[in-house]
Formats: sequence, C-alpha cells, structure tokens
Amino acid sequence: MPDPRFFSRRAPLRYVDAAKVVGAAPAMQDNGQITHVAALDESELLSTVVYCEDETSLSMLANRKFGVCLTKPVLAAHCGGEGAIWTVQSPRLAFAILSEMLHRSHEDDAPFVEGEASVNVGARIHSSVTLGAGAKIAAGVRIGPHCHIGCGVVVGEGTKIAAGSTITHAIIGDNVHILPGVRIGQAGFGFVEDGGRLVRIPQLGRVVIKDDVEIGANSTIDRGALCDTVIGKGTKIDNLVQIGHNTRIGEYCILAAQTGISGSCVIGDGVLMGGQVGLADHLHIGDGAQVAAKAGLMRDVPAGERWGGAPARPVKVWLREIIQLSRLGKEKSGKINDAS
Amino acid sequence: MPDPRFFSRRAPLRYVDAAKVVGAAPAMQDNGQITHVAALDESELLSTVVYCEDETSLSMLANRKFGVCLTKPVLAAHCGGEGAIWTVQSPRLAFAILSEMLHRSHEDDAPFVEGEASVNVGARIHSSVTLGAGAKIAAGVRIGPHCHIGCGVVVGEGTKIAAGSTITHAIIGDNVHILPGVRIGQAGFGFVEDGGRLVRIPQLGRVVIKDDVEIGANSTIDRGALCDTVIGKGTKIDNLVQIGHNTRIGEYCILAAQTGISGSCVIGDGVLMGGQVGLADHLHIGDGAQVAAKAGLMRDVPAGERWGGAPARPVKVWLREIIQLSRLGKEKSGKINDAS
Amino acid sequence: MPDPRFFSRRAPLRYVDAAKVVGAAPAMQDNGQITHVAALDESELLSTVVYCEDETSLSMLANRKFGVCLTKPVLAAHCGGEGAIWTVQSPRLAFAILSEMLHRSHEDDAPFVEGEASVNVGARIHSSVTLGAGAKIAAGVRIGPHCHIGCGVVVGEGTKIAAGSTITHAIIGDNVHILPGVRIGQAGFGFVEDGGRLVRIPQLGRVVIKDDVEIGANSTIDRGALCDTVIGKGTKIDNLVQIGHNTRIGEYCILAAQTGISGSCVIGDGVLMGGQVGLADHLHIGDGAQVAAKAGLMRDVPAGERWGGAPARPVKVWLREIIQLSRLGKEKSGKINDAS
Repeated sequence: MPDPRFFSRRAPLRYVDAAKVVGAAPAMQDNGQITHVAALDESELLSTVVYCEDETSLSMLANRKFGVCLTKPVLAAHCGGEGAIWTVQSPRLAFAILSEMLHRSHEDDAPFVEGEASVNVGARIHSSVTLGAGAKIAAGVRIGPHCHIGCGVVVGEGTKIAAGSTITHAIIGDNVHILPGVRIGQAGFGFVEDGGRLVRIPQLGRVVIKDDVEIGANSTIDRGALCDTVIGKGTKIDNLVQIGHNTRIGEYCILAAQTGISGSCVIGDGVLMGGQVGLADHLHIGDGAQVAAKAGLMRDVPAGERWGGAPARPVKVWLREIIQLSRLGKEKSGKINDAS
Repeated sequence: MPDPRFFSRRAPLRYVDAAKVVGAAPAMQDNGQITHVAALDESELLSTVVYCEDETSLSMLANRKFGVCLTKPVLAAHCGGEGAIWTVQSPRLAFAILSEMLHRSHEDDAPFVEGEASVNVGARIHSSVTLGAGAKIAAGVRIGPHCHIGCGVVVGEGTKIAAGSTITHAIIGDNVHILPGVRIGQAGFGFVEDGGRLVRIPQLGRVVIKDDVEIGANSTIDRGALCDTVIGKGTKIDNLVQIGHNTRIGEYCILAAQTGISGSCVIGDGVLMGGQVGLADHLHIGDGAQVAAKAGLMRDVPAGERWGGAPARPVKVWLREIIQLSRLGKEKSGKINDAS
Repeated sequence: MPDPRFFSRRAPLRYVDAAKVVGAAPAMQDNGQITHVAALDESELLSTVVYCEDETSLSMLANRKFGVCLTKPVLAAHCGGEGAIWTVQSPRLAFAILSEMLHRSHEDDAPFVEGEASVNVGARIHSSVTLGAGAKIAAGVRIGPHCHIGCGVVVGEGTKIAAGSTITHAIIGDNVHILPGVRIGQAGFGFVEDGGRLVRIPQLGRVVIKDDVEIGANSTIDRGALCDTVIGKGTKIDNLVQIGHNTRIGEYCILAAQTGISGSCVIGDGVLMGGQVGLADHLHIGDGAQVAAKAGLMRDVPAGERWGGAPARPVKVWLREIIQLSRLGKEKSGKINDAS
C-alpha cells in the first residue's frame, strides 16, 4: 500500500464506477469498493486493485486476497486467489487510470506541503531549506542551503545533505553523505501507450537509502512504481549516476560516475561498476561482480564474474574478441584468410 | 529576430562601424544601419545581418531581404538576395562579434531581472521561487521551492515544475511535468575559433516545450542559437538527458536516461531511444525509429528502422556482426581461416 | 597543505597517539607531533604526514622533509628523505584515518558557515544566494538565484554564475561562465577498503578554474584529494560533464556533453573531445589530441593524434576494424575464409 507519509488516498471507488472507467464488465456480485492499489505479491486486503499481465505473474496471485485483479481475457481463466477478476484490453493502462484516481503524492499535489516537521535540536539546517509536513530530521544532520526535503521524508542521524539537493518520498539512513544537486524520490519513468498517447503510470513507491551510503553530485534516484528503490548499506555512488525505479542495490557496492541502472534491477553486495556503465532493466548482478567502464549489460551477470564491452560479456571473452578484431584490422583489405 | 521577451536590442550599428569591427570593406553606398541578427532562412528586413559560410546555404539567400550578408570571398559572387554582401575571412566569427554587439539576454545581463510577472490566481508557487519580469504563469501551475523562472518565460496551464529547476528563454506548454533539477534555456554550446582563442557565439533562440511533455530530473535542454529548440507534444524524456541547441524532437517520443542529442538534430514522431544513446549533430531520425541503448548515431536513421551499436547501424546488421565477432573470439589465436 | 580558506586544522596529534590509531610501532625517538597531511611531492615540514604505497613513489621521498611517512613493510628499507618511517598494512587506510583526525572542511562541518564575505560593489548577487565566510567576489560578477558560494571561495572579475549552482573549495578566475546547476568543489570519489567496509579518504584539495572557462549546465567538477583539480584558461565544457578529482585540463580544450574524465588525468592544451567520451584514471592526453564521441580511453593519447572507439585506438585503426567487421557481418554464417 502506498506509504501514507508520501501519498494520500482519495475517495474510494465503487466497483461499478471503477469498472465503467476501465471498460470492464464485472460480475453481478461485485458490489464492493476499492481503496488503494497494491503490488501483486503484497496484496492482502479485499479493497485493493492489482494487475496481472503475463503468465509468470500468475503464481503470485494464488493464495492472495485482493479486491479486483485486472487481467487480459486470455489469462482470466488461470487467475487464482480470492477476489474479482476483471478482463480489460490493457491491464497496465487500466491500473494506471485507477491508480491516478485513488492516490496522490503530497508533493505532486502541491509545490510544498507546509506543516509541522520534527527536527532534532542537534540538527543544523540552513534557513533556506524547505521542510515538508511530517518530515523527521535526526540528531547531527546537516542540510545545506536551497535543499528541499519533502513531506514525510525521514533523515537518519549524522547524515549530511549538501546544497541544492531535493529529497522526496524517501527514508534516508544514518551517516549518509548526499553531495550537491542530488535528486532522490522523484517519479520513476513509467508510461503506458493508449492509442498513440503515452499515459503516465503513477509512481507510488519510495526510495530507501541505508546507512553509510554516499551519493555523488547531480545523481538521480527515482522512487519505485509500487515497491521501493533501495540502496544498500555502505554503497558509494559517484556523480551523475542514474538509478531507475524499483532497482535494489546491495551493500558496499561502488558505482563510478555517469553509470545508469535501469528500472527493476537487482544488484548484489560488493559489486563494482566502472564509469558510464549501462544496465538494461530487470537484470540481476551477482555478489562481487565487476563491470568494466562503458559496459552495456543486457544479460544477468553471475556472482564474482568480470564483464565488459557492449553488449557486455565476460571480460576474457571480450578481450579475445578485441584482440581478434585488432588482428583483422591489420590485414590488407579483404585478405582475411591470411590472418594466421 | 531574437524574441524581445528574452533578448534586448542594443544600439543599432552603422554599416561603417560594423564593417570596421569585422574587417570588411563595404561598398560606398552601404550607408544604412543594422539593428539585429537573423537566421539565413528568416531574414526579411534590410536592417538585419546574416551569414553564409557554405555553398549549400546559398539557395536560402535568393529572394531574401537582408541588410548585410557576411560571407567568404569565394562565395561572394554567388550570393543572391537583396542586401549588401561583405566578405570576411570567417563569416561565423564576424557574425558572433556583431551578435554580441547587437543583442543581450536579459538573464545574462543581470542575475535576476525584477519586475512584474503575470501569475494566474489558480497557480501555486512556492515563496522561494524567483520569477523574472514579464513571466506568465497560467492557471493550475505548481512550482516547487528554489526554482528560477526567467524573465519572459511562459508556463502553460496545469504544468508542474519540481523543486530546484531553472527555466529561462522558454515557452512551456500545458500539463508539462518538469522533474527536479531540470535546466531549460541556458546558452547552447557554440564557439568559433579566433587565433587559438574560442569566441562564444551568442545564443539568441529559445526553447519551446509543447503540451504533455515530461522532462526527467537533472536533464538539460539548451536554447537555440538563432532558431528554437523544440520538444514535441507528449514526448517523455528521462533523467540526465542532454538536448543540444536547435534540435527539434517530434511528438510522443521516449528518450531513456542519460541519452544525449547534439545540436541541430531533427527527430520524428514516436521515436524510441534506449539509455545512454548519443547522436552526432545535424542528424535526422525518421518517425517511429527505434534506437538501442548505448547506440552512437553518426548517420541519419530512416523512419521505422531499428538501429544499434556504435557507430550505429541497422540492428540486423549489428547483431550479425556481434555473432561473427563472437565466433572469431572463440577461435584459437590466429586461426581465423579455420573459422567455418 | 590543505588551504586554510577551505579546511580547518584540528588539534595536532602526538606521534605516540597517531601511531596507536593506525597500529604502527614508531621508534623510541619519535616524540614529535603531526599537524597536517601533505602530498608526497610537496611535503617540506617535519610536522606533516605523507604516505608511500608503491615503488614509483619512492623517488619523490628522497630529499624531502616530513614528520611521518606511512608505508608498507616491504618498502620501508627503500624510503629516503628526512623523517620517521612507519610501516602499516594499508598506508592509504592509515593516511585516510589520520587525515580525518587532522582536517575538516568548513563546508562539511556545517551546512553553511556564516561570516563576513568580501563583495565588490560592482558585483550583482541575487538576495537568495548564500555566501560563506571569507568568500571574495570581484567586480562585475553576477550570481543568479539559489546559488551557494562556499566559505573562502574566490570569484574573479566579470564571472557569471547562473541560477542553482553550488561552488565550494574553489578559486574561480575572470570572465568564467558557469551555467545553471553546476557543482564545483564537492569531495572527490575516493575510498579505501577496510575489511569489507569502505572508508572515505578525506578530500583536502581544491578546484582551480582559470579565466574565460565555460562550464555547462549540471556539470560536476570534484575537488582534489591533496592537490588541485584544474581547468585551464579558455576551456569550454558542455552540459552534464564529469571531471574527477586531481585532473588537470589544459587551455582552450572543448569537451562535449556527457563526457566523463576520471581522477588524476592530465589533458593537454587544445584537446577536443566529442560527447559521451570516457577516460580511465591517470591518463595523459597530449596537446591537440582529438577524441571521437563515445570513445572509451584506457591508454594515453599522444599529442596531435585522433582516437576513437571503446577501448579507444587511433582513428585509422578503429575505422579499419569497423570496415573489416562490417565485411565479416555480411558473410554467410561461418564462411569467414571466403571473405576476400
């Protein structure tokens, strides 16, 4: 359920009204109402709406309670769990539309939600900083000029936030260093097509930054769509790095400058990435893996392996190919068969 | 002509004075004056200065009115249109020098031009926001803390601008989402060499953002040199993306994070670009084209095609090359002729 | 020695106390005290602590005065100069720990150090700008809204700093253009491992920007670790560029957007880099070298040469390889030996 510190719930939707909006034909007995959206693997109440768009997600529905599950006609017969099944052409689009009707980020709703924030007397915050309603700032925190700390944001002990940063929809641990110009907690990049138009999918998750993390200047970390974007303890992120929504990074990783991690990736502990590395979405990078600068990852990397190149492959393979290509380049035009 | 909302005109230049500054020898009858610079294809007045540096631009001069056209000696005889032709060694340098003498950005001239802004009563703007003279803010607009909206900037209905963004020299449409830390309208990256030094070419265009656009955190969109940088309706731009001056992007495109578009590119409608894509300047990307993440485009992409790699080529070609290189890498050292 | 305008010294450390902290066993006669850290090649006082971790640094120790040199057991017998030699398992970690005990950035210590700044009457600074204690702003300087200029920062005549930028630990020359959202002087990205944890190496250097430099929107320039990060006269840096700590860039270079230079690189004069170029650390790029867009440099580039590709190689070699690979891709599957 979207964290009420960051998202307000709007009026509940009667099934009959919701069905009309998304073009579904609910069964006669569907006379309940939905109050909030949920991720497929966390729904526990009969007032939630979830969606299921592919076969691999079906297993998450079994033994689960939900109010309404939006799905495609072809999947409807296979949907388990306890709740109503509605078929629509684009479950994701229908879900986006209902999300928008049910929830609202406090931040998106107003430029700045005024109200009481809780600031420890041992914290030092520049007078130009804007603190949203319900923000909690622990002892020893220092926040430089021109920062915006959104409503509900929690900042742990001893954390330093340099000038010009903005943090919303986030839970920040202890002793975190946030360098200037960092953007944490803005909406992730998610859209669904609707007849040529692109409809925004409401981003209702958070960013969770664990203790001892460092985040370099002008880096950006988007909040999750339904779950959280997580940066593990002690991980060090350089300048101008992008972390997409839902991505989870382990402990004590090092990410060099200008690296970009797409959405929904899972990065293990102790992973090293050189500068300007790029990851496609939904990748798994195992513990202790090392990725060479400028690598473009399109597949999972097993724990402990070293990969490089674009598309990335194990470093040994990559280097062999570089050597062979170099040899080929030295050949006279066309005489490839004399290369040996 | 530079938009007077963003650029002031300085005192007109007499031909004789202008000619002296740029080292041209005007004909006896050149006793007029120039008041402003113009693009080659838009000059309509006899008080403008334009420049023509290559043969392909000659056709734009024909049937055109201008005060002075700066050109190279070798091109002078071929210059048509109505106006004086001056020959100089570097037309671009001469044009930069006269631009600097004739025009001035209100923003560059002062840190912040105070004066009356027009703000709809239905807009909500945080008290820390600086609004330049002549800015127009429509109903339903929300602007977060620590933003700077430069003088003359127009912001359309329902547009949301998150904390810490700066917008100058720009016309922003309705229902645009601008995430935190976005930079819109700063000077494009244009210089001309002058004996080892690099002289700035005044950037006298604007940025035009159409309705329903989204611009991700810490992205940068430079204003045009003489014409506009344009982002088409409904286009979605992710975090840390760079858009160079004069570039025109069509409708409902999706540009993933950390992509960089150089200056003067023309991107069609419905174009998809993966993350960390780079485009050389002056490229044309056809409607519906798809560009794989990390691609480096050095040539135009026809409509509907899928390209990838660096330098980029059609995806089919790219993949075949990857497979062949992979096969080659597996060969024993040097035994290329046994590959089959 | 860390510049006192930016870094305060904390209480001196008695040898016996320092030795205990880093686990060294000093000789009986080591009864002095250390007051500050120094780079190996600049130490001149018997109250400094330096470290030497590899053989190539040994020559810098000879004829040098220092209080304590932290080194590995295997190097101890080869350390020259005048001062005590302490052996520790990780000289870099020991140095980081002592640095942290001896020095403190004014900025890191407080969100904003209030105090008297020196502002020329001819400078125009927006009222929202925060100026740290001891900052010096020359005539003709213009600083836009929501900027933070840290304590001790020097800004030369005629320099323009656009809205939303933050500058700390830096000396800025005359007529420099800093576009919006630029981050200058934050801590460089330096860590040392300590049993799985990553310990921050205090960054005690500065950023020095020479006259006539331009720095594009949202670019980031880190301060040096012990020495300075330097941008040479007239160099033009585009948007979203990253410059790592200790890097020195020459005069009149052009760095296109999204390029990333790692730490401790030395770039000559008149060097051109296309967009999205990446450099590994400690590289030397000779005067007048040109680097193609998207190149990934892992080796030094001699003066005047043109390099491209990733890993980068001379452009001629790179192009030959592209052509050969393209030819190979056109072959029927596997028939590589028929390529000619």
